[in-house]
Amino acid sequence: MGKSSTPSRERIVAGAADMISRRGLSATSIREMAKHAKAPLGSTYHYFPEGKQQLATEAVRFTGEWVARSLRRELEAGPVAGLRAFLDLWRKIVVGSDFHAGCPVLAVAIEEPPTDETPPSLVAAAEVFEQWEALLAASLREHGADAKQAEQLATLVVAAVEGTVAMCRAKRSTQPLDQAAEQLQTLIAAAVSA
Amino acid sequence: MGKSSTPSRERIVAGAADMISRRGLSATSIREMAKHAKAPLGSTYHYFPEGKQQLATEAVRFTGEWVARSLRRELEAGPVAGLRAFLDLWRKIVVGSDFHAGCPVLAVAIEEPPTDETPPSLVAAAEVFEQWEALLAASLREHGADAKQAEQLATLVVAAVEGTVAMCRAKRSTQPLDQAAEQLQTLIAAAVSA
Repeated sequence: MGKSSTPSRERIVAGAADMISRRGLSATSIREMAKHAKAPLGSTYHYFPEGKQQLATEAVRFTGEWVARSLRRELEAGPVAGLRAFLDLWRKIVVGSDFHAGCPVLAVAIEEPPTDETPPSLVAAAEVFEQWEALLAASLREHGADAKQAEQLATLVVAAVEGTVAMCRAKRSTQPLDQAAEQLQTLIAAAVSA
Repeated sequence: MGKSSTPSRERIVAGAADMISRRGLSATSIREMAKHAKAPLGSTYHYFPEGKQQLATEAVRFTGEWVARSLRRELEAGPVAGLRAFLDLWRKIVVGSDFHAGCPVLAVAIEEPPTDETPPSLVAAAEVFEQWEALLAASLREHGADAKQAEQLATLVVAAVEGTVAMCRAKRSTQPLDQAAEQLQTLIAAAVSA
């Protein structure tokens, strides 16, 4: 992350995403998110006048777009290459943070606020999962998988990767990601060569 | 849950597991867990003198054992039956709570406390994942899968189910679970008939 004296909006959003992925959404205050991004609380409220939910929603969308950019680029070489890039990206986050960081989209998806309203960050999390699934499914279809199988496999990949990231953190080991990776690669390769 | 006037230890643990699965660990105080289980705070501290981490650790172990009991029973009819039961169990939790509850083991796995220590609840989460994987892998091996594939598939099943539960909650739909279920069933059936 940059260290310029004027914190950019994006730096605050990226910092919030990292913090939410480590601590969860409810336990993280906007003050802590600002501190984590080395941004003054004033700038943070200037950019996010609606407060924590607005910042959390943008953090989810930011992560969604960042991962989608990598997926779009790597899927050009086919679904197996795309899967590998998707796995590598999460492996780097987990290993690079010594098993302390994970996926902020997952964190937001499993924490209900104490009210009955559906928070905008949860809606954003659903949209991000759908975006990743759609990119993977489109690539699988383009490479010969039938539509139904492409959709199911895309969901399985996103779910399995989200699940293994959590398991890696609990076990302080990349073993779950490595185990699932081999099975997913075989599956994807079989679906496109069928 | 029972409504006897003397709250049992188990009722408090079950209530804590449900609450953690909805709100996450950090955002849930021991006071709220006691209230959620309709137990006086005094009884709760009587049973769990070390406080929230002790209760959370027992909630993770309780969920682990509850799921393992169901797995052990259903895997007697083979890995496909075991997988179906595992999926059904989570589907019931997600649908029965109107997409508000999920897995407390996952919740604990992805929330770091603000200190450097590894909390006992995280250690318990890793043990629970390993227990579920070991049960599935043993059944796969018994039904003809080779050892390496059995281990990889077991990890994939646990990861995919944890991931889809989170995706179902975000999307307010069982579609992710249904999509992944078909792929997992095909995979498991192929592994044991190979």
